[in-house]
Formats: sequence, C-alpha cells, structure tokens
Amino acid sequence: MTSTDPGPRPLSPTRRSTVARGKHRAVTEREALHHILDSALVCHLALTRDGAPVVLPTGFGRSGDTLYLHGSSGARTMRDVLEHEVCVAVTVLDGVVYARAVKHFSMNYRSAVIHGEARIVDEDAERLHGLERITEQLAPGSWGHARKPDAKELAATTVLALDLTEAAVKVREGGPSDEPEDVLADQVWAGVLPLETRWREPVPADDLGGGISVPEHVLHRSAADR
Amino acid sequence: MTSTDPGPRPLSPTRRSTVARGKHRAVTEREALHHILDSALVCHLALTRDGAPVVLPTGFGRSGDTLYLHGSSGARTMRDVLEHEVCVAVTVLDGVVYARAVKHFSMNYRSAVIHGEARIVDEDAERLHGLERITEQLAPGSWGHARKPDAKELAATTVLALDLTEAAVKVREGGPSDEPEDVLADQVWAGVLPLETRWREPVPADDLGGGISVPEHVLHRSAADR
Repeated sequence: MTSTDPGPRPLSPTRRSTVARGKHRAVTEREALHHILDSALVCHLALTRDGAPVVLPTGFGRSGDTLYLHGSSGARTMRDVLEHEVCVAVTVLDGVVYARAVKHFSMNYRSAVIHGEARIVDEDAERLHGLERITEQLAPGSWGHARKPDAKELAATTVLALDLTEAAVKVREGGPSDEPEDVLADQVWAGVLPLETRWREPVPADDLGGGISVPEHVLHRSAADR
Repeated sequence: MTSTDPGPRPLSPTRRSTVARGKHRAVTEREALHHILDSALVCHLALTRDGAPVVLPTGFGRSGDTLYLHGSSGARTMRDVLEHEVCVAVTVLDGVVYARAVKHFSMNYRSAVIHGEARIVDEDAERLHGLERITEQLAPGSWGHARKPDAKELAATTVLALDLTEAAVKVREGGPSDEPEDVLADQVWAGVLPLETRWREPVPADDLGGGISVPEHVLHRSAADR
C-alpha cells in the first residue's frame, strides 16, 4: 500500500503533532505507533461539520503506514471526511494512578493521534484489502472464515485511507509523580490499579444452527485471556 | 450546578445530534446518557485548531447535566476549547459481533456524543466541585482520601464545564444481523465475543512507606471484578 516508502519514517514531522505537554511521554518510534494501533478495537475519528468539530467512535484497520476506515457510502460522515482534514485518536488504557495529592492522579495509557487528509479508495483490490484489515483488526481470523463482500455490498461501502505520516504517540506508565513533601509525609496510599480488557466466553447467535461449533480463531481469542 | 433545571430534558434537540445512521440504536433517555458517562474512565475531546479538527483522550467528571473537564492552565488545548465549539465522545465497548458475512461484523457498545460550547469555571467552589467529580470518576473514594489541591495547584488548573444539552446516545447489543440467506446456509459460526474491563491487584508506589496498607476504596474496586 505504501510501495514508494523508502523505509521507516520519523513521527511528528510538524509542529501540531509534536507533543507540547508531557514531552517526556512522547515516544518517537514508528514501531510504537504500529503497536498501539494494533492493540485497539476502536478509534475516535474527528472531523469538521459546518465549522464545528464532530467526533465518533469507529472501527479501523492498519496496513503498513496506512490506516483504513470504512462506512456506509450514503453516510454524512463519509462526505464530511472527504471535504476536510481529519484527526484520529487511538487510546489504550492500562491503569489508574493513585497519588498522595489529587493534583497528581493520572492514568497509565498508550495513545496515538493522527492528522491528515483521508483519500477515498477507488480500486477494488485495495478496497478489499482495506476491508480485510478492518475485519482482521476487529475479529482476527474472520476474513478467511466469513462470507466476503459481494459486488453490491462492496458498492455500498466507502473505504477511506489515511497515511500515518503525521502522528503523535504518548505513553504513560509507572507510579505516581507526587511532590517530595507529600511522599515524605507518608500518610496516603499511592500506587497503580492496573486495568485489563478480557474476552469472555463466546455467545452463539440465537438463530445459529445446532451443528456449528465455535471455530478455533474465536475459541483461541476467548481463551487467551484466561 | 444546574439549579434552574426544571427536570429531565429530552436529548437530541438539534438536527446534528439526532442520530441519522442506525436510528433504531438511538436511545433518547437522559438516564441512559448519564449511565454511559458514569461507566467510562476517559472521553475523547474534539476541538478545532487552525481550522482542522483535533481529538485527544482526557479524563472527565459529571455532575447532574454538566460535564467537567480539566487541564493545565497554560495548555494550548484549553485555549482552543474556549474559542470554539467542542464535541466529546464517550464510548464503552461491550463485545465484538461475529456475523456470517464480513459486511455484518460489528461491535456491541454504548456511546454518547455531546456538542456544545465549554465555559471556563470561574468560581473556586465550582472549580473544586468539578475537580472532585473528575477525581471521583477516575478513582472513587479518593477525593476524601488524598490531599486536596492547594491555592497554587488550583490556580494552575483550568476547569471547563460543558452542558449536556445537545447529546446523542447510541447503544448496540445482541447478536449479528445477517442476511436471511446466510442464516439459512448455516455454514458459518455467528455470535458475540463479550469484552469486559477488569481491575487487577493494586501495585503500591516504589516509594510508598511500609506502614501504609491499601485503603478500602481501592481494595473494594479491585476486588469487585474478581
């Protein structure tokens, strides 16, 4: 998808995607960006509509340095996206940081914020590739298992591509950063309450035929967290 | 904070906050909005900067029909928020929906999208109230436990309030919505893989004194999921 790419590119080439607050939390490696994107199920897509910002949760997929989004071809959001720049945030929460002082309560997280102009994907081959990446991000192993889009379904779906050229990554980890006098006072518990997202047991659809058992790629995902 | 409020207000009073896609998933009760907001740790705040949208993850708190946000008084984001409208999305993921056809893969989720103009909170009493709600959303029980902001810390913090007047709520739950012919074909597993977010064991800070045990409000939160 990015065949002219000469190799790894630095992040944050512009001022606005250079992290201004919490600079020590900016991670500049492209690999970290990929890792965060690959860890999440949902992104938050921000666009401008009638001059005001709009933000919506949506699925996504990644292929190299391209982010894919999709939506119904008739949707207002798809048209708005194409008229202006967009911004996409992907956030993974890892825990809540309890400090001695309210001021220093925080979250441990990994986040990526991407700016750019989305392009509409015209070629069917790339459209299918984009949909495959989106499906595999949401439900690994499903592209080769479920029925693929037919011509009508493909026509009703808009696939958008966003280059991962302008992106900012922030990571916070570890314990609280309290004031020295609060640490010395030694009166309040401080630490981290880690958060994890886990899969539970698969729930078959009400109208599923009795002869179909849970496939390996679903069982495996569900069991991996236990 | 909303003492002139005559009672429950309807959601979606404007066209743009009226859900256009997936209308059957729009939930119009204000109680549902409150419940979704109270279930989340983070929101995604979208604003306009130099004409382009920017979206950032941030903590928040709720008091009645007011959403509170905070940030460092010197932060660019706080200034940008005050010059334009903002949009805030809160999303809780409940599971991945596996369908017979790629086209119908989906997520089960509860989401709220709020539009409005943020106002800066001037009065110290409301500023403290806003910070209390933000702290309690992130770490229930901590406002009465940790050291509260002193005058200097309070001065360095901007608290913003956003009325929950213009909001859209969407909820998706249950199994896949496949095409009748795919259901009849009876060849592909379909169902839901539920997702849950759980707390793990508290991790004390490296510099915590040996005499301080994990307080009840932290232990309770951590144990509630086990």
